[in-house]
Amino acid sequence: MTNPTAQVLEIRNHMFLIDCGEGTQVQLRKHKIKFSRINHIFISHLHGDHFFGLPGLVVTFRLLGRKKELHIHGPKGVKEAVTLLLKLGDSWTNYPLYFHEITAKTSVLVYEDEKVTVHTIPLDHRIYTNGFLFQEKLAARTLNIKAAEFYGIDKAYFQNIKNGKDIILENGDVISNKKISYNPPAAKSYAFCSDTAYKPEIASLIKNVFALYHEATFLESEATLAVKTKHSTAKQAASIAKESGAHFLILGHYSTRYGSILPFKEEASTIFPKTYLADDGVSFDFELAPFVE
Amino acid sequence: MTNPTAQVLEIRNHMFLIDCGEGTQVQLRKHKIKFSRINHIFISHLHGDHFFGLPGLVVTFRLLGRKKELHIHGPKGVKEAVTLLLKLGDSWTNYPLYFHEITAKTSVLVYEDEKVTVHTIPLDHRIYTNGFLFQEKLAARTLNIKAAEFYGIDKAYFQNIKNGKDIILENGDVISNKKISYNPPAAKSYAFCSDTAYKPEIASLIKNVFALYHEATFLESEATLAVKTKHSTAKQAASIAKESGAHFLILGHYSTRYGSILPFKEEASTIFPKTYLADDGVSFDFELAPFVE
Repeated sequence: MTNPTAQVLEIRNHMFLIDCGEGTQVQLRKHKIKFSRINHIFISHLHGDHFFGLPGLVVTFRLLGRKKELHIHGPKGVKEAVTLLLKLGDSWTNYPLYFHEITAKTSVLVYEDEKVTVHTIPLDHRIYTNGFLFQEKLAARTLNIKAAEFYGIDKAYFQNIKNGKDIILENGDVISNKKISYNPPAAKSYAFCSDTAYKPEIASLIKNVFALYHEATFLESEATLAVKTKHSTAKQAASIAKESGAHFLILGHYSTRYGSILPFKEEASTIFPKTYLADDGVSFDFELAPFVE
Repeated sequence: MTNPTAQVLEIRNHMFLIDCGEGTQVQLRKHKIKFSRINHIFISHLHGDHFFGLPGLVVTFRLLGRKKELHIHGPKGVKEAVTLLLKLGDSWTNYPLYFHEITAKTSVLVYEDEKVTVHTIPLDHRIYTNGFLFQEKLAARTLNIKAAEFYGIDKAYFQNIKNGKDIILENGDVISNKKISYNPPAAKSYAFCSDTAYKPEIASLIKNVFALYHEATFLESEATLAVKTKHSTAKQAASIAKESGAHFLILGHYSTRYGSILPFKEEASTIFPKTYLADDGVSFDFELAPFVE
């Protein structure tokens, strides 16, 4: 890990950017992420390694001729910072730029559309910090068209079937929805938790999360330092994963003091076996093995 | 050129950082520049590609345990920007940080010690911008110790000889300084001019400069665009070099629209043959050929 924090989460056709450390735009380009697909940026906290890449990205969007809205969700202060830097450079955006500043100390909904919700996860760091819980909504059921035709159901009722409703035929027979539709794909969820001291309360906010990213700045051997700097150890991250009932744990944000990141996986795996390591440029496809069970 | 502007100038034991675009600290690390040797940073203007790496560098200096003073010389506003970002992150430096804000519209002295001077070079860009002229002071003459002993001159007078003074012997004979000392090494100078529209007045401010770095964002075929965006063409940069009597010209800040940067050298060389191309990670040693004539 030589680069500061930034993650791209592709979920239900969205491309969410989570945190934006210095150099994020270089990494986005390197990994061929289409800038135009990013419409929402979520910033956990205002430490440089999580947001000093944001002003540059906002300017680059302009140079790329962006016309679409850009929404930035982050702690109070993010608007003042970005607008001051734009003002000093006389570099106002020519696309609509919206700031959604967060001040809540409890978990709140910060984004919702027909496909996903995003809630904050209040964390415990040296400055005001939120993680984010991204949840897919359950998609509509899939019509079993052959079965529907078999029962002679008119097309006009197909949307009702997708919405999970039973159908009453003209003869009064009730056709159970399960007979004429398939289950929708399971709704997945992703929790991003960085930076934070060990905070057991996180687990109850992300119950049964599909994939949990939790910072592990230190190993348990440096637990005292973790407390002092309000960071977590790999073991503590694994405890959160276990307590929350997460399916998978992804670690990251390793201190540069460690020559190798493998011990993080080893340490966490003793408590939570399905642990993976985030690293520069690494991507995880939750539709593929080993994430599909 | 994939990275924004930043240059390190090593001159008379100083390591000056000139501009600090996003990602500069990564490049410094990559090219093994010792962070602790940087004590003065000169910022030309407050566009992101020239200063968005500064807040992160200031924070990194702290994490590296810096104790020495850091001096930042740049346009009014640089202090407000850096201190706001430090404040938002509650990341105050634990080393003395001094801002020297520049507002002058004429060339002014912004740094001086016993070895070098730094003057601003007012440029013509979309926002307030200065280039910088770094000049070595003429070093003391080197004592010709054998000649001094030949004339029986006492050690007490050696400093006077280094200072260029003639010596009067006890018998009244005057020994010309040239007979008992060597010329000091030639004082070199470096002018940094980015970003700027073609501004002929620059030449008179940097008369006989040793090496001139001048931006060449465009080729002459895009001269109209250069005027519109207040940048220069390679040919215009070469004109400044020729008019100033510079010994060498280094081009940089090429627009990403060009697939190759070689045409910049070709275009400039028709007017000023001793033209070189700056690029990511390229260094020029002015003590080595082809700079030594």
